[in-house]
Amino acid sequence: MIVSVIGLGLIGGSIAIDLKKNGFADKVIGVDNNPMHAHTAKKLNIVDQIQDLKTAVTSSHLVILAIPVNACLKALPQIMDLIDQQIVTDLGSTKEELINSLSNHPKRKQFVPAHPMAGTEFSGPQAAHSGLFDGKCSIICNPEDSHKEAISLVTDMFHALKMRCVYMDAEVHDRQTAYVSHLSHISAFALSLTVLHKEKKDKHIFELASGGFDSTVRLAKSSAEMWTPIFKQNKKNITKVLQKYIDTLQQFKDSIENDDLKGVDNLINEANDIRRVLDQKEKNEMETLKNAEKTIRA
Amino acid sequence: MIVSVIGLGLIGGSIAIDLKKNGFADKVIGVDNNPMHAHTAKKLNIVDQIQDLKTAVTSSHLVILAIPVNACLKALPQIMDLIDQQIVTDLGSTKEELINSLSNHPKRKQFVPAHPMAGTEFSGPQAAHSGLFDGKCSIICNPEDSHKEAISLVTDMFHALKMRCVYMDAEVHDRQTAYVSHLSHISAFALSLTVLHKEKKDKHIFELASGGFDSTVRLAKSSAEMWTPIFKQNKKNITKVLQKYIDTLQQFKDSIENDDLKGVDNLINEANDIRRVLDQKEKNEMETLKNAEKTIRA
Repeated sequence: MIVSVIGLGLIGGSIAIDLKKNGFADKVIGVDNNPMHAHTAKKLNIVDQIQDLKTAVTSSHLVILAIPVNACLKALPQIMDLIDQQIVTDLGSTKEELINSLSNHPKRKQFVPAHPMAGTEFSGPQAAHSGLFDGKCSIICNPEDSHKEAISLVTDMFHALKMRCVYMDAEVHDRQTAYVSHLSHISAFALSLTVLHKEKKDKHIFELASGGFDSTVRLAKSSAEMWTPIFKQNKKNITKVLQKYIDTLQQFKDSIENDDLKGVDNLINEANDIRRVLDQKEKNEMETLKNAEKTIRA
Repeated sequence: MIVSVIGLGLIGGSIAIDLKKNGFADKVIGVDNNPMHAHTAKKLNIVDQIQDLKTAVTSSHLVILAIPVNACLKALPQIMDLIDQQIVTDLGSTKEELINSLSNHPKRKQFVPAHPMAGTEFSGPQAAHSGLFDGKCSIICNPEDSHKEAISLVTDMFHALKMRCVYMDAEVHDRQTAYVSHLSHISAFALSLTVLHKEKKDKHIFELASGGFDSTVRLAKSSAEMWTPIFKQNKKNITKVLQKYIDTLQQFKDSIENDDLKGVDNLINEANDIRRVLDQKEKNEMETLKNAEKTIRA
């Protein structure tokens, strides 16, 4: 099968690498507006060939969009106008607005809105690598609005990437990612800003930072190019979730201020329940990987 | 040299392991109120011997306190009353209140207040391991208030742990750790609470969590036993820093709410400067490790 990947950054590049490696794609065509990215992706052998958007789309079986969500909103209708029998999928972090923008398109059923829950704080084709998706979960939204064959092809693709698929409503997806992905990024950006601001007066403040700080602030390296459009498209959910986060921080502050040590203990003990969640997540990932490898061997 | 370690959790256990391994200590005596911890530490060969506090303190050259900061506030004056020529150091995350509590003690100059900037979200002797301190930074506070020989011994100990030492005023230490350590923990606890609360209604919300969420929330596994007393002792600084963090989050929320995309871009671009800090930190750690290994070989 010939696969086109539009956008050769971390996500698009990593998917291209593994779809070639696992044999799902016989050939991967790359498309990127940024000639440097296109050049790097070809040079690193991430894609077999670089083409312009129209040539790539019309000469492939599956088209994968891996560009920022605002760019996707513009490019997707153009791509849907170009296709004949092709299946199109995207990998963006927000789904509702994109799906709505296509609701009256005659080829809507050939589009599968997806979101693989994987990434790092780095970007560009040089950040792309094999194994990024291993064991992780991919969301496919509103499957009832796509052809069965389209859902089946995209599901097979994610299985070939050693992922498991979860099907859900776009509205639920956008609400839940506001909690488990978008909020993490804003909490890291704000942590970075708070300490960087202090650094202006206390030059040596980062001498004291340990591994815990690194871990909590890591996502603050993420790019505005990718994240500002996500915050815009998911504004309704993100502003709600941010308010809840601020309220919880305020609760912490009040308890500390009022020497309510029992209250602080209770908050921390309750927060510790995240151990259960992270342990379960690790189990799920190992299970997914094991199943994927079993299927591949079979 | 005979070293006593009071408190055989992650920090005390890890220091005991490496002080034996690198030959700084000829013998490590362990003390722990919790008989299970004492038993485990002996069984895992973390310490050579378990003794009661008085016997341990009086029979050693160096006493290291590695217990929660509230327990330290009680135990330190008792230990200082017991000592003859011994040097005493502590490893707690808050320094001002502890130092003030000892200001009139006749043996004050034999005490060196310290804080190695290393840790993980795990606790207990089973979490202790070699290499926890490798390349990291250790703070020594108010060195002018300790005997030169005491400072020198404790500095040598941290160098033997492959750490570098920074000397600073306790007041500055407490202010700066509120930013680079204590705030990270509260931001993680609050993130955990916000999403766990949502889980009550959205059972499958954690299906969507990726590695970014794990990293940001990791510190929320940390124990109330250790952290509530830190927040209490550093209340003055933490409440200030928390307010700044909340204000920054509010700024994010307002920009998103008002579709001020330029404003969101600016916040993210400014936060991205954390790359410089984290890169520098990594360089410092590698440099420290290299120097430590050079000294050991020499």
